[in-house]
Amino acid sequence: MTESPQGTAVATPGPAAPRGRRGRRAVDVPDLVARARDGEARAVARLISLVEDASPVLREVAAALAPHTGGAQVLGLTGSPGVGKSTTTTALVRALRRAGRRVGVLAVDPSSPFSGGALLGDRVRMQDHAGDPGVYIRSMASRGHLGGLAWATPQALRVLDAAGCDVVLVETVGVGQSELEIASLADTTLVLVAPGMGDGIQAAKAGILEVADVLVVNKADRDGADRTVRDLRYAQSLGGRHTGPGAWQPPICRTVAAREEGIARVLEHVQAHRRWLADSGEGARRRAERAAREIEAIALAGLRARIGDVRGSAALAALADQVVAGETDPYRAADRLLAQL
Amino acid sequence: MTESPQGTAVATPGPAAPRGRRGRRAVDVPDLVARARDGEARAVARLISLVEDASPVLREVAAALAPHTGGAQVLGLTGSPGVGKSTTTTALVRALRRAGRRVGVLAVDPSSPFSGGALLGDRVRMQDHAGDPGVYIRSMASRGHLGGLAWATPQALRVLDAAGCDVVLVETVGVGQSELEIASLADTTLVLVAPGMGDGIQAAKAGILEVADVLVVNKADRDGADRTVRDLRYAQSLGGRHTGPGAWQPPICRTVAAREEGIARVLEHVQAHRRWLADSGEGARRRAERAAREIEAIALAGLRARIGDVRGSAALAALADQVVAGETDPYRAADRLLAQL
Repeated sequence: MTESPQGTAVATPGPAAPRGRRGRRAVDVPDLVARARDGEARAVARLISLVEDASPVLREVAAALAPHTGGAQVLGLTGSPGVGKSTTTTALVRALRRAGRRVGVLAVDPSSPFSGGALLGDRVRMQDHAGDPGVYIRSMASRGHLGGLAWATPQALRVLDAAGCDVVLVETVGVGQSELEIASLADTTLVLVAPGMGDGIQAAKAGILEVADVLVVNKADRDGADRTVRDLRYAQSLGGRHTGPGAWQPPICRTVAAREEGIARVLEHVQAHRRWLADSGEGARRRAERAAREIEAIALAGLRARIGDVRGSAALAALADQVVAGETDPYRAADRLLAQL
Repeated sequence: MTESPQGTAVATPGPAAPRGRRGRRAVDVPDLVARARDGEARAVARLISLVEDASPVLREVAAALAPHTGGAQVLGLTGSPGVGKSTTTTALVRALRRAGRRVGVLAVDPSSPFSGGALLGDRVRMQDHAGDPGVYIRSMASRGHLGGLAWATPQALRVLDAAGCDVVLVETVGVGQSELEIASLADTTLVLVAPGMGDGIQAAKAGILEVADVLVVNKADRDGADRTVRDLRYAQSLGGRHTGPGAWQPPICRTVAAREEGIARVLEHVQAHRRWLADSGEGARRRAERAAREIEAIALAGLRARIGDVRGSAALAALADQVVAGETDPYRAADRLLAQL
């Protein structure tokens, strides 16, 4: 449950040093970035690893990437387990590749902080694209309790962006919070549902309608697909976000991703949404909001790291014991904790 | 997307003042707590509202509750949308009431920060218990992007605990992060799955196995229930948490909550887990860990509030624009943001 040391306290060794301390080979960040921009997959992978592992050169990587970012179109893809996100991602990648576009995929794996590991499913399905130099695929473990997507994913996205991806797909399991995060990360958010995964009210309960720019009813060959579409339409009619003149009305598409049916139509809606983002000014607003969130998240993580130094200490344990015993309340305990920073 | 002003900066007006500023009626916290402890439902509801709305008397409420907490057994109940959480909660409440126990229910509603509202489903089903003085039911909106459950729920839980509930059920939609939160909140976490909601690998992908103390396959009269149980067993056999002598092996129960089938067995497992918590020392460890997390969350929220003051300001907007333009990177921007605190 510990978090990696990250944020403002991270030291940046000089790029000229031939070897880092502790005998690790020093990282030549400018060279790595140059090679990633030339399309070298290994350099891209290495940069993402540096980001994901909160390497000491994290800040140097971020600074080196900055001038080369902003070109990629970011598509978020989310939905409950079992709706077919990985299959849909695979189908979208195929279609985008046929159109000659360079594609990055970040599969944000929600496997637990306890086990840390990703399961086989995604990786196996993704093998389809192994060896295609126009596709970068990366499965990311979501780190720890707080932060989740907020942390490494935006930086990994910057790596793929700087590496010249035209489109980056960010796939995440999620209802609730991670969805909100993906919506704040993506230019366009696709929300997948499947027949039998819950009716429209369930979908609305999970908060998915508000974040969806395009709704995809996958496995549309199954019983109940019509019902699901109807429920989503009804729930949409109750919702408030997409009202007013010029507002975007999230379309509802049907797909059978395993057979690549309906995928072209989804991409048409994505492009229509992209035009709307540009014309309405909403695209620029989202990108500025995304950057603001990222700055905030990094600032918060820096502060959290300072609390983390206290965490596990005898002081916090003693405060926790007092709260359990009813001798103090958590607010007063928090005051005392902050006083120690 | 703004968060309520909370945390260390909240002012506490003197309890003697007959009227608060802005003409609101002053809250007599000690009287409210006394009435809540006498079982007055309206006092309980009012206290939870004070907590949920981050009232200026929040800290006073927390201090007044502290000496009366620690008695309630906290059951977390989680699972994807559509697995039947509300129905299961209702069935559990009925069974616990038949056993003469006082029950609190916190239905943490994940409806979006955009709409803020809870949908009808839960509330309707919960009407069953309306008028039973031994049951407090509260649907809570999850607030904002960061925090989620972390914020108001532990405090609401303290209210129900101090009000003399023997058992508090905390129901939340969730895969991923909110599950981790519920696990850190509850003494015993029930994870619900349903046939057709995804196989064992999907369940494991969503990280549900690691947080489950008791696994419940609901809608067990449906096709595929055997398969689901088998998949869960297999996924369990791969997992690492529950190993070693004396470790808790999460049982897998089948229920048809809508017909109250299997509910008694679930409660037997819950009681067995409770004994294990006591005997192993894990219960005390969890409670201390929970208190530590709560203290941390409050401390972090206090720090976040200070960042929030900067947020929306011209300074953060300018930093975000620079990041979008590639003129700086988010780490350097975060440094500058923190320098302004």
